[in-house]
Amino acid sequence: MPEGKTCLIVGAGPGNGLAIARRFNQGGYRVALLARSPDNLRRLQEMLPAAHCQRCDVTLPDELARAIVSVRADLGQVAVMIYNAGSGMFGSIDDVSAEDFEAAWRVNALGCFHAVCQVLPDMRSAGGGNIVIIGATASKRGSAAFAAFASAKGAQYNLAQSLARHLGPEGIHVSYAVIDGVIGLERTRARLPDKPEEFFLQPDDIAAAVYDVTQQRRSAWTFEFDLRPFAERW
Amino acid sequence: MPEGKTCLIVGAGPGNGLAIARRFNQGGYRVALLARSPDNLRRLQEMLPAAHCQRCDVTLPDELARAIVSVRADLGQVAVMIYNAGSGMFGSIDDVSAEDFEAAWRVNALGCFHAVCQVLPDMRSAGGGNIVIIGATASKRGSAAFAAFASAKGAQYNLAQSLARHLGPEGIHVSYAVIDGVIGLERTRARLPDKPEEFFLQPDDIAAAVYDVTQQRRSAWTFEFDLRPFAERW
Amino acid sequence: MPEGKTCLIVGAGPGNGLAIARRFNQGGYRVALLARSPDNLRRLQEMLPAAHCQRCDVTLPDELARAIVSVRADLGQVAVMIYNAGSGMFGSIDDVSAEDFEAAWRVNALGCFHAVCQVLPDMRSAGGGNIVIIGATASKRGSAAFAAFASAKGAQYNLAQSLARHLGPEGIHVSYAVIDGVIGLERTRARLPDKPEEFFLQPDDIAAAVYDVTQQRRSAWTFEFDLRPFAERW
Amino acid sequence: MPEGKTCLIVGAGPGNGLAIARRFNQGGYRVALLARSPDNLRRLQEMLPAAHCQRCDVTLPDELARAIVSVRADLGQVAVMIYNAGSGMFGSIDDVSAEDFEAAWRVNALGCFHAVCQVLPDMRSAGGGNIVIIGATASKRGSAAFAAFASAKGAQYNLAQSLARHLGPEGIHVSYAVIDGVIGLERTRARLPDKPEEFFLQPDDIAAAVYDVTQQRRSAWTFEFDLRPFAERW
Repeated sequence: MPEGKTCLIVGAGPGNGLAIARRFNQGGYRVALLARSPDNLRRLQEMLPAAHCQRCDVTLPDELARAIVSVRADLGQVAVMIYNAGSGMFGSIDDVSAEDFEAAWRVNALGCFHAVCQVLPDMRSAGGGNIVIIGATASKRGSAAFAAFASAKGAQYNLAQSLARHLGPEGIHVSYAVIDGVIGLERTRARLPDKPEEFFLQPDDIAAAVYDVTQQRRSAWTFEFDLRPFAERW
Repeated sequence: MPEGKTCLIVGAGPGNGLAIARRFNQGGYRVALLARSPDNLRRLQEMLPAAHCQRCDVTLPDELARAIVSVRADLGQVAVMIYNAGSGMFGSIDDVSAEDFEAAWRVNALGCFHAVCQVLPDMRSAGGGNIVIIGATASKRGSAAFAAFASAKGAQYNLAQSLARHLGPEGIHVSYAVIDGVIGLERTRARLPDKPEEFFLQPDDIAAAVYDVTQQRRSAWTFEFDLRPFAERW
Repeated sequence: MPEGKTCLIVGAGPGNGLAIARRFNQGGYRVALLARSPDNLRRLQEMLPAAHCQRCDVTLPDELARAIVSVRADLGQVAVMIYNAGSGMFGSIDDVSAEDFEAAWRVNALGCFHAVCQVLPDMRSAGGGNIVIIGATASKRGSAAFAAFASAKGAQYNLAQSLARHLGPEGIHVSYAVIDGVIGLERTRARLPDKPEEFFLQPDDIAAAVYDVTQQRRSAWTFEFDLRPFAERW
Repeated sequence: MPEGKTCLIVGAGPGNGLAIARRFNQGGYRVALLARSPDNLRRLQEMLPAAHCQRCDVTLPDELARAIVSVRADLGQVAVMIYNAGSGMFGSIDDVSAEDFEAAWRVNALGCFHAVCQVLPDMRSAGGGNIVIIGATASKRGSAAFAAFASAKGAQYNLAQSLARHLGPEGIHVSYAVIDGVIGLERTRARLPDKPEEFFLQPDDIAAAVYDVTQQRRSAWTFEFDLRPFAERW
């Protein structure tokens, strides 16, 4: 088994997930990534040959549990978990169905609950650990056009706060990144062809901030931090 | 069919639900109450003989839909809906199961989503209406000991904000009451025998505030208001 | 001396101040209004012949103290104080001078501090009272173009919260109205000639909400409530 | 003139100020510190012989302006300013005088306004820069016992938000640290002799977080971050 600690990224794609994996790898961590889509998984494995990449739908608790058992067997106990699963279902209450509403919650909130339950024993036996949950503007604000996504993110945010308060005294640092803007990916650039590059959040810069928060010493921990491009109107 | 408009209270018990029903009845509304427990239902029907009281589990969408159809058939279109369903599952992530976590969300958030979908056509055909959602401190704050309840209330709060923004321009006033304290009921007084009466929120006083917000004229609508006893430490 | 209780409106103009005075008058209160501009004062006195109207610059503590002594001598102890002084100095840090920055704070925050100190003895000797402070969107959000006004309103909001927590247990109800939108006045309609009437907050509707909050019974007090037109985008 | 960029710390003492100076110095910055008390100043100069230490009362705009001119003459244009001035005047509205209320605002809000005005030309001519403002729990919450301090910090916080929105598009990164807890200093440890060392925030750990936020790349800037000890109850 390689040296270093293990960082598990739940819900990884070619944007944040890949960038966060690289940042932790560069910091000496072994890295595991869970992704739902086989295509994503294949690309991640190609770009990160040393990483443990595994298919997993976070809304299926048994699959998630098995995936984390397998990560642990391969890379050892999880020291850092980044919860990055969070697909958005956009639309107002007129646009989203009850199924969309529930699906958003399963990915953003219930999946996070399950993932935390799975990694807590590792962190407790190690006397500490880090959980970073990747949120969005919708975590703090229910816009008209985000009935399902904002509700799911509100559920995730309040869960994160409860976890931070409960687990902090045990040395487990829970933090929450509020991503306020559009992440620069192939598909977002294609969708917004008129936007200049500086309009987008760069995954590498998000990854740097996520990494930094996990390195804070325990006398001065951050729970919540926002991240947005310098030119963003907010 | 009686004169006046119809107020539907979803999730009624002997505290807020009964008091809100009385307040709207006194204001000239026909009143319908949906309650899950047969005991609650019986007591409500005894105390409010003129009201339409109906058994309904808000986590069962078909049952909820049928209940609202029946209310409409009996009392006419719903002009005001108070969403008061919101049982709390207390405990940290170590104390609550994934089932508790899901159950809290089904009652507080998904049930609210379904109930709003059911009454929206009535309000739209009337060119306006009122939806008041009864929240709690946990809507705004994820305490350590409220992992499931705070998450469910966070989901409800962000949904409410999205609804308020989306429906306001149609003349449908969505508002959110943040109840910050313990409501004075037989069971809460029994659980906290040392607390003076002034420690508790009185359901009649909550009902007065809920009623007032539904009477606001549309040039000056409140979305959010907190309610707490004068002596509460917050 | 007339029957009823006394409501003092600090910082009254032809919009909110006049409307609030009328609403309290209609509720049986004696009403006193303090205004800085002689023109405002004259108009208020003409429209409210029974009211005690007095010139006062809230940024001059001695003048404010004398004005309140005179109100008390004329109408008796103050039971309700509405702090409505709050002229806005708009502009970013590039547009406002340090003098503007200070002036905004003197009107919105320091004047409020002084006014509360003046009326507290009345409320304490009566075993209770009401203080309502009229805030704005800028109380909760520092927009780029509101460097001075948002800072002054932030100072006022945090003061109000401190007062509410400190004075609540004494039966003194402090509340804060967040006015989110443009109030419909001669000058605002002239400045925004293309806006439909429904764009504006109507002073009478603001006054109704302010009055209602002062009538809440003490088991269920609201500290903060927002007010905005139904069609407002927020 | 030494290599590197210049970091100016306004309001420096033996805790945060010294630690932040050391952290930036270690990062290759030239460091200037402004302190009001001659004793503080002497100690800082002894511990940081290479730093430009200067006496300055931030509530005196001319003195502040001269101090910054002198820093610029000695160390070059200011690239990073940390606004750490913020003495607390504790007490409810019954305990603090109007003078205390004003003094708190002058140090926390008006001094910050002046300091920003002084360094903006440097940052604009350089096409960017960093301003970090050191806040407190009271920035976000008006507790009963913090009438003056919370009001002053509320004024500072809203100013900071306005600055961040206004200056971001120019490449000037404004951020706000919410320090939630007691900083471990000789005098705080003496005041709280029963508290274990882990109760306190360590200045070096605060300094690390402050430094990190100034190093963020501009596609992903944080405006606000909280800092608290792992065992803090919040």
